[in-house]
Amino acid sequence: MGRGVAHKLIESHLVEGEMVPGRPIALSVDQTLTQDATGTLVMQELEALGLDRTRAEVSVQYVDHNLLQADEKNAEDHEFLQSAARRYGLWYSKPGNGVSHPTHMQRFGVPGKTLAGSDSHTCAAGSLGMLAVGVGGLEVAMAIAGRPLRIRAPQIWGVRLTGELPEWTSAKDVILEMLRRHGVKGGLNRIIEYHGPGLDTLSAMDRHVIANMGAELGATTTVFPADGAVRDFLRAEGREDDFTELLADTDAAYDVTDEIDLSSVEPLIALPSAPDKVVPVREAAGEKVGQVVIGSSANPGLRDYAVAAAMVRGRQTDSTVSFDVNPSSRQIFADLTKTGATVDLIGAGARIHQAGCLGCIGMGQAPAVGSNSLRTFPRNFPGRSGTKEDSVWLCSPETAAASALAGEITDPRDLAERLGIAYPELEPPERSSVNTRMLVPPPPREESLRAELVKGPNISALPDFPPLPDRIEAPVLLKVGDDVSTDEISPAGAAALPFRSNVPRLAEFTFTRIDEDYPRRAHDLADGQGHFVIGGDNYGQGSSREHAAITPRFLGLRAVVARSFARIHWQNLANFGVLALEFTDPADYDRIESGDVLVLDGLRETLPAASEVVLRNKTRDEEYTLRHRLSAPQVESVLAGGQIPLLARELE
Amino acid sequence: MGRGVAHKLIESHLVEGEMVPGRPIALSVDQTLTQDATGTLVMQELEALGLDRTRAEVSVQYVDHNLLQADEKNAEDHEFLQSAARRYGLWYSKPGNGVSHPTHMQRFGVPGKTLAGSDSHTCAAGSLGMLAVGVGGLEVAMAIAGRPLRIRAPQIWGVRLTGELPEWTSAKDVILEMLRRHGVKGGLNRIIEYHGPGLDTLSAMDRHVIANMGAELGATTTVFPADGAVRDFLRAEGREDDFTELLADTDAAYDVTDEIDLSSVEPLIALPSAPDKVVPVREAAGEKVGQVVIGSSANPGLRDYAVAAAMVRGRQTDSTVSFDVNPSSRQIFADLTKTGATVDLIGAGARIHQAGCLGCIGMGQAPAVGSNSLRTFPRNFPGRSGTKEDSVWLCSPETAAASALAGEITDPRDLAERLGIAYPELEPPERSSVNTRMLVPPPPREESLRAELVKGPNISALPDFPPLPDRIEAPVLLKVGDDVSTDEISPAGAAALPFRSNVPRLAEFTFTRIDEDYPRRAHDLADGQGHFVIGGDNYGQGSSREHAAITPRFLGLRAVVARSFARIHWQNLANFGVLALEFTDPADYDRIESGDVLVLDGLRETLPAASEVVLRNKTRDEEYTLRHRLSAPQVESVLAGGQIPLLARELE
Repeated sequence: MGRGVAHKLIESHLVEGEMVPGRPIALSVDQTLTQDATGTLVMQELEALGLDRTRAEVSVQYVDHNLLQADEKNAEDHEFLQSAARRYGLWYSKPGNGVSHPTHMQRFGVPGKTLAGSDSHTCAAGSLGMLAVGVGGLEVAMAIAGRPLRIRAPQIWGVRLTGELPEWTSAKDVILEMLRRHGVKGGLNRIIEYHGPGLDTLSAMDRHVIANMGAELGATTTVFPADGAVRDFLRAEGREDDFTELLADTDAAYDVTDEIDLSSVEPLIALPSAPDKVVPVREAAGEKVGQVVIGSSANPGLRDYAVAAAMVRGRQTDSTVSFDVNPSSRQIFADLTKTGATVDLIGAGARIHQAGCLGCIGMGQAPAVGSNSLRTFPRNFPGRSGTKEDSVWLCSPETAAASALAGEITDPRDLAERLGIAYPELEPPERSSVNTRMLVPPPPREESLRAELVKGPNISALPDFPPLPDRIEAPVLLKVGDDVSTDEISPAGAAALPFRSNVPRLAEFTFTRIDEDYPRRAHDLADGQGHFVIGGDNYGQGSSREHAAITPRFLGLRAVVARSFARIHWQNLANFGVLALEFTDPADYDRIESGDVLVLDGLRETLPAASEVVLRNKTRDEEYTLRHRLSAPQVESVLAGGQIPLLARELE
Repeated sequence: MGRGVAHKLIESHLVEGEMVPGRPIALSVDQTLTQDATGTLVMQELEALGLDRTRAEVSVQYVDHNLLQADEKNAEDHEFLQSAARRYGLWYSKPGNGVSHPTHMQRFGVPGKTLAGSDSHTCAAGSLGMLAVGVGGLEVAMAIAGRPLRIRAPQIWGVRLTGELPEWTSAKDVILEMLRRHGVKGGLNRIIEYHGPGLDTLSAMDRHVIANMGAELGATTTVFPADGAVRDFLRAEGREDDFTELLADTDAAYDVTDEIDLSSVEPLIALPSAPDKVVPVREAAGEKVGQVVIGSSANPGLRDYAVAAAMVRGRQTDSTVSFDVNPSSRQIFADLTKTGATVDLIGAGARIHQAGCLGCIGMGQAPAVGSNSLRTFPRNFPGRSGTKEDSVWLCSPETAAASALAGEITDPRDLAERLGIAYPELEPPERSSVNTRMLVPPPPREESLRAELVKGPNISALPDFPPLPDRIEAPVLLKVGDDVSTDEISPAGAAALPFRSNVPRLAEFTFTRIDEDYPRRAHDLADGQGHFVIGGDNYGQGSSREHAAITPRFLGLRAVVARSFARIHWQNLANFGVLALEFTDPADYDRIESGDVLVLDGLRETLPAASEVVLRNKTRDEEYTLRHRLSAPQVESVLAGGQIPLLARELE
């Protein structure tokens, strides 16, 4: 039975386990990618690990999220990240150089390689025949330190493409069609592999669009073959030598299958406020529009801007529309400018912004309440735009430009007919405007080892977490109900986010959405005494942010006792040395109150030996049986105080 | 005795008074300019006035300050301003179209006209032979309503220019030389008029640079003649028909005089944190630089960007410098792009931003603490960059580009020699990229009268302020010391600023830097009861913001009794119907305490008749004699509840 591209990529990087869906496997990591919003913590983790220098073939630190610089904190992050890149031998992509995903594809992507990135759209590099997985910060830190990436082996989902896209549709409509069919959970525990004759008409950047938004399907990642289109792309980037062919066997078999006839795809749009509420544009036509934004890693290619520029050339965008253009990289902006498209966009009334993520991650460009905003972005979760009651739609550049001209949601085919616009014939440049002047290479090893981390007042070190004591006698500082989210544990938002690189300051926000007084009570305890939190069902649901484990740990949390845990937060607690324990009798939850003093004893012997531990309630003179579910390596991690001290020891 | 340009401009617009320095005069206003940060209040004032339509020849509402859109409030301001422009017959310059001053000059400036603008750099239009004065919002609202501008006749300061600027120096160095000589108070109560043979080598945009930063000298405004350079400028803008020659008489006499030999000017730089701490660049050379920004109304011309682009062409800005370029208008950005300069800037590692003020008014681009930032901006007051402990330097584009390349402060002459850079020969385009697609014209009168104001949740109306009662019996809600600033009365900053268009919400910040509880105490009083504030010397010093009169008035303030008042705030109190009273015996200040109940009686008869009133302290059974200093029209205004109800009555 033949193998597909995903299968080959996994096999060539498998260092532990077997390629059976659901089984744990470990994969060697060739390249790493970090962006600034997650990268500051990764760099602090490298510092705590005492790493000498990255062990990956290529590691790149991008700055594309925090570009607004409303106060000094962004600029301090930039300085810190640049110094950390120097110190650990990473490439540093300066603020304004571009969004990580297209920039990585242009400058570093190599077919057949693996990439671990601390950004959920890392999967976009699957467009070049890479196995690219978005993971948490600590996983990337460990990959930089040379450790393999541990995941559960996914199913391979073969999606066969046939036919050719009609005029006025593009790759974005293909991935919106996937979302319409399968929804935001359709790709869970799967790698999506596109194959079939329809691929011939999709450029590498078109494939990037489709691979990028595989994240919205919940897929582990997306892969495309490394074929002629990838060779063409790398040639234009001056990197043909980096090309290796990687194709699926002709008789490749897949665990799950689907098929899209590209010739049947029509312009689609995702309604507010979910990427899978997809309908034909014509069904939404006529809705008044206040803002149209072109950009982001979901439509990063030169053609995505050029097609919009060709449509608005010599025309005027509607007087009540803000028409925003965010170049995805300065290289693409340079190419766009050389072709005259930038002048066309300016002429039609575009606001052209610096290269970066910007509005896509709510850094500026927030629309007015109740005003429809059409964006070529990947996500439209409520409030992500920065406006609480927003109304954000996702669409292709063709639909975006048509709607900007009309002032209302408009199918580009209908606008073209109305205004007599011919479908733009776009010829990609033979050779891109390759220019690495904002990409700072890693210094030689010796220079790198001598480099100092530059830490402005807002940059902390990752705190040292000591090993788990054998006995914990400590009070319950907080008892919460069911479904407490990581957002309630460590909030996002404009007040807290600038402190992501400052654990002590960020810790002051811990649990404050539930109980404002929690940080003070934690500080009032004696040093090293620690405390418990009692949780209900599904403790730690939601975002994967590691800060939700780190900041309570910083305040002295040693154990959470809950009815049940959400998967990723449970893993993060183990990673950072906090004991996650479940009631064997859920009714015991009701027997413990905030303020009770609890005792766990003999932990260093019990945890490795048994899956159950006894919790004594000293205040009420009761005992409860708890379960820990930790694997042997995880027990080791928790006892050591977390993955970092453990790995730091190994690295020595 | 011959007359200069300033004299002629004043004479041709004088509707009251005599042109004798220090005497009150009134001038008719031909054009008005508002930007968004001050304009929302102006539009609310027009609404409160019940104005039908602007009575000025040209009124333009620009959006150039609040462009970051970190949440929905900016976009709501934009919608409100656009609807108000429609309603009152103003031009609307969309967000991203450009900074008001260069845009106004390009599209609307007409020699011989007067311009009142609610922005301190309005004076930049003096470059075209206009009399352009930056004033408070209510003054502009009154000008829009057809009322003359009332000022004290200034002295005319004739500055004769001879010679020609050497290579690597430019207009910015001329105004820095003025600041070096005369300091930030050098122009107080003066109009600066440049004349002499040196003018021949300065383009209209060069003159804009010099006129703009006349604000930093404290001047009432700056004027240049409307000569051949102005004709050339208007021709390139496709507006030669708007040209009228306006020259000084050959024997023009000036109240004060100075002379600059341009050939002796060298590259200058203002040290942190005052625009008049000016030294030769070579004295500061070698200081490490973290950020370089080119843009703002202080260096808005095509040549200012083009010279920098020519210097960095094919070169790499230093790897630790953020090199930011803020186009001053999209028209200039289009021209820059057509010449290829944009590609040169991108190639060298520039971050190119949307057209607007941006970092110049602390909207983004904040540097790291302790990191030197070189800017071609007009101001470097401490903290204005958004970073509290900032280190901002002001210089020419030549010095900025040289320093960006070198990574340290560098005289452009020295860099040119070191790298063998020839002085760029720049040829301005015959015709600018005139494009009015982001300038929305006022609708016809009938349509305009039917237009509705669009008010998002954060846009309030200006509250109605009733007439002053004949008797005020009310408590002292707050007693403050000397030199209380308007910043302490109505703070700026990221928390308060987004509420500038929302008086009720902004009112909650009133006096909170001095006494957090003041707004609550004001709310606790019975409706309409009112209250007093007791002040020391120099009450209301600092920024001219009208909000410092409006928000306490909104909370019920009817009278401030102080030892003395700062001039502008005193005027603002009168404008918004708050009685400003001074102790005739300063020692009485000590006899009143917070909480005392005070009584003023018979006000409607006493105030017009006498300059003194008697204040009874009911709590202590004492009486104090106070002085009001109000002119007859001002008494009328205070009795009416402020200028707005008064003028509203007149307009009916």
